[in-house]
Amino acid sequence: MKERYSRNKVISYYMCDRHQRVTLSMLVNLLIDVSEHHSKALGRGEAYVKEKGLSWIILRYDFDIKRLPKVNETIKIETVATEYNKLFTYRDFYVVDLEGNEIVKVTATFALLNHDNRKMARIPQELVEPYQAKFSKSIRRLTKPQGVDSVVFNEKQYEVRYFDIDSNQHVNNSHYITWLLDSLGSSFLSHHEVTQGIITFDKEVNEHQLINSQSSFSDVDENWTNHVITSDAVKHCQASFKWIRLEEEGG
Amino acid sequence: MKERYSRNKVISYYMCDRHQRVTLSMLVNLLIDVSEHHSKALGRGEAYVKEKGLSWIILRYDFDIKRLPKVNETIKIETVATEYNKLFTYRDFYVVDLEGNEIVKVTATFALLNHDNRKMARIPQELVEPYQAKFSKSIRRLTKPQGVDSVVFNEKQYEVRYFDIDSNQHVNNSHYITWLLDSLGSSFLSHHEVTQGIITFDKEVNEHQLINSQSSFSDVDENWTNHVITSDAVKHCQASFKWIRLEEEGG
Repeated sequence: MKERYSRNKVISYYMCDRHQRVTLSMLVNLLIDVSEHHSKALGRGEAYVKEKGLSWIILRYDFDIKRLPKVNETIKIETVATEYNKLFTYRDFYVVDLEGNEIVKVTATFALLNHDNRKMARIPQELVEPYQAKFSKSIRRLTKPQGVDSVVFNEKQYEVRYFDIDSNQHVNNSHYITWLLDSLGSSFLSHHEVTQGIITFDKEVNEHQLINSQSSFSDVDENWTNHVITSDAVKHCQASFKWIRLEEEGG
Repeated sequence: MKERYSRNKVISYYMCDRHQRVTLSMLVNLLIDVSEHHSKALGRGEAYVKEKGLSWIILRYDFDIKRLPKVNETIKIETVATEYNKLFTYRDFYVVDLEGNEIVKVTATFALLNHDNRKMARIPQELVEPYQAKFSKSIRRLTKPQGVDSVVFNEKQYEVRYFDIDSNQHVNNSHYITWLLDSLGSSFLSHHEVTQGIITFDKEVNEHQLINSQSSFSDVDENWTNHVITSDAVKHCQASFKWIRLEEEGG
């Protein structure tokens, strides 16, 4: 049996946007918080991983969203490490409301970074064993985010701020989500809600870097937007999101 | 007896800076969250206030910090509405660690905004009664933050982002704190820790506004920095912070 772990969370006002729903960036913070508690409960917390000269990095999120939790709502976040291969581990998260409905599913892909050579490390058996995830020889082939249109696109610049770096000594990955989405502009964001998403992380951004966030509508399906974050010629992060138009309130 | 209210909170990794301590902005989010629960428990939650055509606004914070809570630490946040006069209410917050030490004290000054005329409203007796705060005729005279040096100062610009606006439909006041502090630059911030602070809010910033954050060292006491946030000629927020130099780690 795979080790399942869950925690309840109450959605506070400061986690929510103007539509009273949790932001995608805050949702990711809550999920990773639960996965860190899960690892600690299995004796595989940050300290254990660090002692081996390694740290987990997140390479990818896949979001499937029926509805986002609302302000003051209590949710249960369940998580399970489903599968691993020699380089990657896959973890599923389920956000469940008080009536037992699964309202959000997120899959995260992790890899291990070797502190000495800054390269990806093979995943040691003893590190993943307690999660009881399935070993699979093959690496998952997942759809990549589409590229941003080269002619018609939105573009915004951001500077990495001092407080964007969290206690893990890296730019907290929720900030990438803010940069990705903010470029769409508020007239779009205030009338649409995200229902699916793929984010891939290629290369970490560093303090003081000026980054460029571009987005465009997909030319294949107009319900999707495509996104890229770059600095100079370096690609840091790509994403695609699917949207539905919000109904006017009180309309 | 004044109504005292408390809640426990666990400090998560995403709330902390690179020194593993909660950021001042996240601390403020946690405090206000507790005060909202307090009000709701007394039947004076947001819905009650809104029904009267009013909403609470925060005019000022006074911080007194022995040490900031650390990542994974469990803290108790206690709060009590201490005093009110015809225009303002004062609320104290105490952050207490598991050993019972009071590590942070914050006083917040609130006022009521009338939704119709966008002006400050007299505080109705029935709104504040359940808190059992003391009525005082006189308005507190509190030290104002000092002005920023006009010759030598740091300066940074920020654009208000879509997700800076929270479920209360205003720029979440923790973002002002990020703008205030970020202007000091990372070489200062990474070697200093805040021990006292005063923040006053003058005029709200709005979406898309370009704001300017300036800071300088006080010419009266070099342990203090002074701050102002403006847009064009409008002053939005002022602050002064007192700092101690962090000892080098492992030194």
